[in-house]
Amino acid sequence: MLIKEKLGQAVELLNEHGLDCWLTFVRESGIMRDPMMDFLCEANMTWHSAFIVFASGETHAIVGNLEKNTLDEMAVYQRVTGYTEGIAKHLHEVLREHDPKTIAVNWSENSEVCDGLTHGMYLVLKKHLAGMGFDDRMVSSEKLVSSLRARKTAAELERMKRAVRHTLDIYDEIAAFIRPGMTEKDIAAFTTARIQERGLAPAWDPDHCPAVFTGPDNKGPHYHPTDLVAERGHILNMDFGVKVDDYVSDMQRTFYLLEEGETKAPDDVQRGFDTIIESIECARQALKPGVVPHEVDAAARDYIVSKGYGEFPHGLGHQVGRFAHDGNALLGPTWEKYAGKVYQPVEEGMVFTIEPRLRVPGRGDATVEEMVVVTQDGAEFLGPPQKEIFLV
Amino acid sequence: MLIKEKLGQAVELLNEHGLDCWLTFVRESGIMRDPMMDFLCEANMTWHSAFIVFASGETHAIVGNLEKNTLDEMAVYQRVTGYTEGIAKHLHEVLREHDPKTIAVNWSENSEVCDGLTHGMYLVLKKHLAGMGFDDRMVSSEKLVSSLRARKTAAELERMKRAVRHTLDIYDEIAAFIRPGMTEKDIAAFTTARIQERGLAPAWDPDHCPAVFTGPDNKGPHYHPTDLVAERGHILNMDFGVKVDDYVSDMQRTFYLLEEGETKAPDDVQRGFDTIIESIECARQALKPGVVPHEVDAAARDYIVSKGYGEFPHGLGHQVGRFAHDGNALLGPTWEKYAGKVYQPVEEGMVFTIEPRLRVPGRGDATVEEMVVVTQDGAEFLGPPQKEIFLV
Repeated sequence: MLIKEKLGQAVELLNEHGLDCWLTFVRESGIMRDPMMDFLCEANMTWHSAFIVFASGETHAIVGNLEKNTLDEMAVYQRVTGYTEGIAKHLHEVLREHDPKTIAVNWSENSEVCDGLTHGMYLVLKKHLAGMGFDDRMVSSEKLVSSLRARKTAAELERMKRAVRHTLDIYDEIAAFIRPGMTEKDIAAFTTARIQERGLAPAWDPDHCPAVFTGPDNKGPHYHPTDLVAERGHILNMDFGVKVDDYVSDMQRTFYLLEEGETKAPDDVQRGFDTIIESIECARQALKPGVVPHEVDAAARDYIVSKGYGEFPHGLGHQVGRFAHDGNALLGPTWEKYAGKVYQPVEEGMVFTIEPRLRVPGRGDATVEEMVVVTQDGAEFLGPPQKEIFLV
Repeated sequence: MLIKEKLGQAVELLNEHGLDCWLTFVRESGIMRDPMMDFLCEANMTWHSAFIVFASGETHAIVGNLEKNTLDEMAVYQRVTGYTEGIAKHLHEVLREHDPKTIAVNWSENSEVCDGLTHGMYLVLKKHLAGMGFDDRMVSSEKLVSSLRARKTAAELERMKRAVRHTLDIYDEIAAFIRPGMTEKDIAAFTTARIQERGLAPAWDPDHCPAVFTGPDNKGPHYHPTDLVAERGHILNMDFGVKVDDYVSDMQRTFYLLEEGETKAPDDVQRGFDTIIESIECARQALKPGVVPHEVDAAARDYIVSKGYGEFPHGLGHQVGRFAHDGNALLGPTWEKYAGKVYQPVEEGMVFTIEPRLRVPGRGDATVEEMVVVTQDGAEFLGPPQKEIFLV
């Protein structure tokens, strides 16, 4: 069971980081769900609930009485306490018994997936802890939680590889379907139908998953498909992923629509595409445990610039897991908006996208997005990478 | 358009509460979505984004450059700024221009729907504001945001009434379907199929929406349907709702399975059911603008106790809107876990459930849950209330 596996990993990480206790504090998690809940309890909790893991290996859940049955049935937590009126008394009892010197709590300035505690709940928890003189023991769980999400277990990788396989198979179906004159919306609708007929969900907002971009007038990343028509002589690119057993893929592919009489892509298009593929390989070779992420971004970015193209206006790649954007460390440049993420050392077991982009004037954008897992001494593709441009 | 309507309401509320500015600050809202985003922007934002409403009526969105198109297309914000590297400079510009003395931000100890800012993002925002000497101007937006969610517009009420209508129609179908010997799971599966064939989604976690509870050994609220068999002589009750255009219903109904030869419910069952119906009417009559919620809870609670039954181990009712549990003010007793919610005065336009419960020994739990909207001087049912027990 995944939750049991992940709780075991959490105990290891508490010890690795010299922390005594990890406390996740939630309420109405159906409304705003701390991303760490996926590793603690599949069901949502209504009232103030605490999931507590100690470095000793002990685990304790304190939940509203109506949800105690659900926790008992999970049979994962060594102790489950249900309450009717309020959590404070029970929280005090458990913490006093273990007397942890540090209590790691889910907040993070750098990372949204490590930042599941709302500010109001932070204030509530601080008061509860102040009531027993423990409020100065709270520390950010960022490092622990970040590694817990990032270090994929074999079971997690297996799910992600299946998501990649589905995505690549659907790309083959799309390549056989596209014709000049179709709109971005036509191609998106075809893709959505293929995802649904496999019984899968899109990896992110269906509004722009799939995303389809055609020609030099395309609206650019994170925009929904439009009525823009795929024309001969243009580059078309797509971006989508699927969710398989709660884990997702995120992949881009580039297509070229042949002019009448053409049998291959013209030189400017081919050169753009090749530069993208080569820059991905530069990045993959730079990626290994211990490396600083912005150096991996620079490997691809500098290569593209050295070939005379403009810089891509975004990071090179992000981690993937339960969400398409999942994890703290991020392969990006040292821009303000990426904050500390581009300085977090790469760890074995992390899954990243590599997704450079460049503009071929008058044709459109060449983009390819691959997914790789960091191994002991390098990085491996999760599925066969694109080597040839899809010719339509 | 709902967002435009709600932004107008926000400007009124800023003035009503004497606040200069309401600032919603988000990132990766696809992962954890500030509940107020539904009233500000349907799409999710990736990078640090700010949605700012001034008491003067001016509105401003600052978002990552890849999402600027989406905001421009919405055509709701008077000014939209896209950025590439970081939000700080643009945030400073907008705030310096308006020089608001108070900046209301989404945190709340009392209410999860008013508590959309994570603690990490609170720290980030505080730094940005400190950079211009404005960090001491931050205040909680709880009162503003709470009223904005709670005061349903005509368009919102119309959607909720449609959700109620669907729910009651499905209850009629269920009443014709149930037979002794069916399991809770059988009845839940039938209900799920009826929801799906109407093209609707369940109002909360499909794990326990619908919830089905049969006989004296049922597992109690918030638990998923089990293999427990519906038996003659037992009470069976159900709890579910549906989502219609993003707004939900939440309703419970009570059934009794006649023994061979019975033509009506036995006295103990009928008396329990009648007590529930009467206690709902006590609560409805107590409910009006300005009243303090725990008094409404007490009206039903005391009535049930006066008839010799035990107290229900939960609040009498909650607000409903986009979520089944939606809103700050809550009809509950003054227990710790309900915090300040049971002291927030009732406002016109709020929609509440009224859902008392009592145990009939050896038979099961009698529960009925109605939905009411607070009017100028009272409260009205959103659909026909249950008056007779469903006999199977």
